[in-house]
Amino acid sequence: MSDVALAEKAVGADDLLTPEQFEAAIRAVGAQRYHDKHVFHKMLHGGKLSKAQVQAWALNRYCYQEAVPRKDAALMARTDDRELRREWIHRLHDHDGLGDEPGGIERWLILTDGLGIDRALVVSKTAALPATRFAVEAYVRFVTEQPLTVAVASSLTELFAPSIHRERISGMLENYSFIGDDVMAYFKRRLTQAPRDADFALDYVKRHASTRAEQDACVAAVQFKCNVLWAQLDALHNAYVEGRIPPGAYVPPG
Amino acid sequence: MSDVALAEKAVGADDLLTPEQFEAAIRAVGAQRYHDKHVFHKMLHGGKLSKAQVQAWALNRYCYQEAVPRKDAALMARTDDRELRREWIHRLHDHDGLGDEPGGIERWLILTDGLGIDRALVVSKTAALPATRFAVEAYVRFVTEQPLTVAVASSLTELFAPSIHRERISGMLENYSFIGDDVMAYFKRRLTQAPRDADFALDYVKRHASTRAEQDACVAAVQFKCNVLWAQLDALHNAYVEGRIPPGAYVPPG
Repeated sequence: MSDVALAEKAVGADDLLTPEQFEAAIRAVGAQRYHDKHVFHKMLHGGKLSKAQVQAWALNRYCYQEAVPRKDAALMARTDDRELRREWIHRLHDHDGLGDEPGGIERWLILTDGLGIDRALVVSKTAALPATRFAVEAYVRFVTEQPLTVAVASSLTELFAPSIHRERISGMLENYSFIGDDVMAYFKRRLTQAPRDADFALDYVKRHASTRAEQDACVAAVQFKCNVLWAQLDALHNAYVEGRIPPGAYVPPG
Repeated sequence: MSDVALAEKAVGADDLLTPEQFEAAIRAVGAQRYHDKHVFHKMLHGGKLSKAQVQAWALNRYCYQEAVPRKDAALMARTDDRELRREWIHRLHDHDGLGDEPGGIERWLILTDGLGIDRALVVSKTAALPATRFAVEAYVRFVTEQPLTVAVASSLTELFAPSIHRERISGMLENYSFIGDDVMAYFKRRLTQAPRDADFALDYVKRHASTRAEQDACVAAVQFKCNVLWAQLDALHNAYVEGRIPPGAYVPPG
């Protein structure tokens, strides 16, 4: 029986979940829907993609990286809780960099540089799949429009990220001759950043979701976020594995 | 040589296009990118889909139908031009109905009823592909956020709609035993509604796009809208032809 089913068995549909039940329901979403279950992810990590396909992945995924500090700024713009902003701001530092630290987006561009993709094209986002941009911007809107606790909850896919990053580092270094240690810097840094962020956000939603309806909305937010990630891999698979590249989208040089 | 190339040859990149050149550039987008070129569209109209696949199409496409009056209301909310609102409001009448006229969304639900899909499930939108909803909501946001003339331009895919609707009516009636005259009522009505709307919007953007940059933004708006439509068919093809239905999405009974 899944964690969700266990939690549902233990309490009625309107009863407040205990913190443990609530956390189990959130983690169960990842076990079922996180994008490490996607066929494109498995191909990426298993060395089954061509360089052209890895290029398309990195160019598209840049749009997601680029959107993250915007959604974090959107979240900070919505709260008068200074302590929350003081904690959340380090996500902006992580992605945009601060002072001498270039940040995660710059590290992503070192990855796309390493793959031989024109940096101006990556940054323009014009060659990304429309479906990538629709999904990514849906995430920014979600954080802008949903109740604050639910918006925080949508970040909780980071609970599931460290294992995917570890897999990615070893899988990609091992399987692709065109990927070296230097270009994997993004994922190495995220191994320590993501757990810190996820622990804070998980604690926050546990403390602030005070009704069952709010708890359910937080669980649904994690589902929504999994959909955002999954839809990006669906679009990549459709375009660059099945070969149905939509009009105007990136055609890798190979 | 394409219409766009002709237009670009005739004038410099910064020169204002003549109304004829501007219209040609808009129409060229449809010739290249409208979703009647998509493989799923061809399968749909050519009788190559199973009933289950047509069900999935109708359930997902409902999300688009449902969003249209919201984007039209968003557009009306942005203008102090009463004459524009007086014209535009009939799009809301067409979709939502007025008085005894039930409107296009109700006609769409007669289509989904006829296909045997539970109406409450359709209306809930919960079983639609996430990618469908991301694309559709991107359209609503576009109309909410872009300059008014550009927002109007994004409706101009209706220039290309009558032929697709004619094809759809004949193709679907001919090829699917489970589709009758009554359930095609939506498309029959659109044969007269879409051209009226498109003529007005085309005239509007021709009169209001007063710089080359605005004209280019209008052409890009039609490209954007084509992407919104294309991404929906990509997602349907991926899920219901290739069989990679994302977690939580509609599984047709067949």
